[in-house]
Amino acid sequence: MTRTVIESQTKTVTIGFDEPFCVIGERINPTGRKKLAAELEAGNFSTVEKDALEQVACGAMVLDVNAGVVYNSNPNPNETEPPLMTKMIEMVQGLVDVPLCIDSSVPGALEAGLQAAKGRPLLNSVTGEEDRLELVLPLVKKYNVPVVAISNDDTGISEDPDVRFDVAKKIVERAADFGIPAHDIVVDPLVMPVGAMASAGQQVFTLVRRLRDELGVNTTCGASNISFGLPNRHGVNAAFLPMAIGAGMTSAIMNPVRQVEMEAIKAANMLMNHDANGGEWIAFSRVLDAVKEGATFPEAAKAAQASGAGGRGGRRRRRG
Amino acid sequence: MTRTVIESQTKTVTIGFDEPFCVIGERINPTGRKKLAAELEAGNFSTVEKDALEQVACGAMVLDVNAGVVYNSNPNPNETEPPLMTKMIEMVQGLVDVPLCIDSSVPGALEAGLQAAKGRPLLNSVTGEEDRLELVLPLVKKYNVPVVAISNDDTGISEDPDVRFDVAKKIVERAADFGIPAHDIVVDPLVMPVGAMASAGQQVFTLVRRLRDELGVNTTCGASNISFGLPNRHGVNAAFLPMAIGAGMTSAIMNPVRQVEMEAIKAANMLMNHDANGGEWIAFSRVLDAVKEGATFPEAAKAAQASGAGGRGGRRRRRG
Repeated sequence: MTRTVIESQTKTVTIGFDEPFCVIGERINPTGRKKLAAELEAGNFSTVEKDALEQVACGAMVLDVNAGVVYNSNPNPNETEPPLMTKMIEMVQGLVDVPLCIDSSVPGALEAGLQAAKGRPLLNSVTGEEDRLELVLPLVKKYNVPVVAISNDDTGISEDPDVRFDVAKKIVERAADFGIPAHDIVVDPLVMPVGAMASAGQQVFTLVRRLRDELGVNTTCGASNISFGLPNRHGVNAAFLPMAIGAGMTSAIMNPVRQVEMEAIKAANMLMNHDANGGEWIAFSRVLDAVKEGATFPEAAKAAQASGAGGRGGRRRRRG
Repeated sequence: MTRTVIESQTKTVTIGFDEPFCVIGERINPTGRKKLAAELEAGNFSTVEKDALEQVACGAMVLDVNAGVVYNSNPNPNETEPPLMTKMIEMVQGLVDVPLCIDSSVPGALEAGLQAAKGRPLLNSVTGEEDRLELVLPLVKKYNVPVVAISNDDTGISEDPDVRFDVAKKIVERAADFGIPAHDIVVDPLVMPVGAMASAGQQVFTLVRRLRDELGVNTTCGASNISFGLPNRHGVNAAFLPMAIGAGMTSAIMNPVRQVEMEAIKAANMLMNHDANGGEWIAFSRVLDAVKEGATFPEAAKAAQASGAGGRGGRRRRRG
């Protein structure tokens, strides 16, 4: 049974076929967030703090941390990103005790993150590109951490799901050459927008099944990409996530502050028999009830967490 | 490729693996609706009329018609139900041009329905019980209609999904003895409440896949049963339906007047590549937008239908 174990200082989260779906909070990422990028360059971490607390309250089990700011004062991320990654990880670890996902395309930032993170973080990411394989897999081996493997290579992102499967297989094989086991590879089969490619959903469901059955690996994805360009995106995401979970997807990098998506995941966990006695669903339902009475979802989730009734997130969080 | 063809006077609906999910509206049924039962005994069909129009506007592709009233004036449904079934079917056919699902446990009412229905209705239902097989299959053969086959038999409803599969297989084989092809059997594998049986969701997903792969039959279910006894049932239903669709379920008998369930189905259709260019999703999104602006879902659906923008239901409906 494939189990990918990630840890914070004191907490363990297991990604696995028989585990509740692992929600990796995506918010701590300045990409496309100009205000956050400016704050980070100015040494202001108030949004990071808010995003860390709010995502965990809403049900994130792991937090992605991305320090990909291009400074106005220094356009070289190889110089600026590693110290910023260190700082952000220290900040987040001081607030919440959940495992982290160290997210960068800058090798120095990945290593800075690995040095700063307590426990056993998830590294994000390696691809099938030769230079990435040669740079990232040694880090994965050296620090004994699991890694997200994205199914593109030097030829780009293939629209053919069989090619994306082959790229994933190549990464798993290459990792094995480094002594990295398949259960430490979490494959992102790449989710295309269904509005642009009508077969995008079916591709993912088929790929997830193959990755699980043939390679024995856990899977993740940038879930919201499925609905890119469509109206009422949350409705599409909220159907996609249960379908992906039913097909065998075991985690997603996503925004946990969105009620409809989190509701879909909590219900899907119960329907997969990954929520003993429906306890998580019933706790989450109290949050939904508070939202019906006028609270925002993050407010209701925080209140439930504070009262100890918020389910997983609530019981897990501990202030540093 | 398995295709179950059902027809109204002029419209055809195909249940199939490559078709949009077939929503069979469940509302025209006095079971558990005391007010409707009293109305029907009094010859008042105003609720039937409202339910017919509203369900079709909201996206029902087929309407279930159940005349199972136990009259206060005459407790013998073998006498009262057949003429009521005839009357209700004539009433519904006069209002909406969608195929009907003739739903009764009274053989005389099934035959009355078959005589009254235009086109090719769906018969609901046969079970694996010997007396039902012997009573219903000859009607299915005589009228050349498809039939819902419920996976219980003389021993009751098994909690073991393998037993329920075997019952379905027996019905398909018995039907074959009558010359009824598998594509005219729509199996209901029986959905248990997940709150009472934690494996209920997984049972259905596994059964649907087996029924499709091994027997080549279409499937249906009473979808809302999955959430019986749980809080926030719509959230459970709205995750269950996409997961069931992903597993291969091709229809459900359900309440189409519920927005969240219909939204989940429309999104799942698109994710299954059963909504060319997302046209149905985009049309449905306009209904969702109207709901956000304060309309009820049925109001918004009716308005979209009247303006010709309501998608499938709108284009199909024609007044008699």
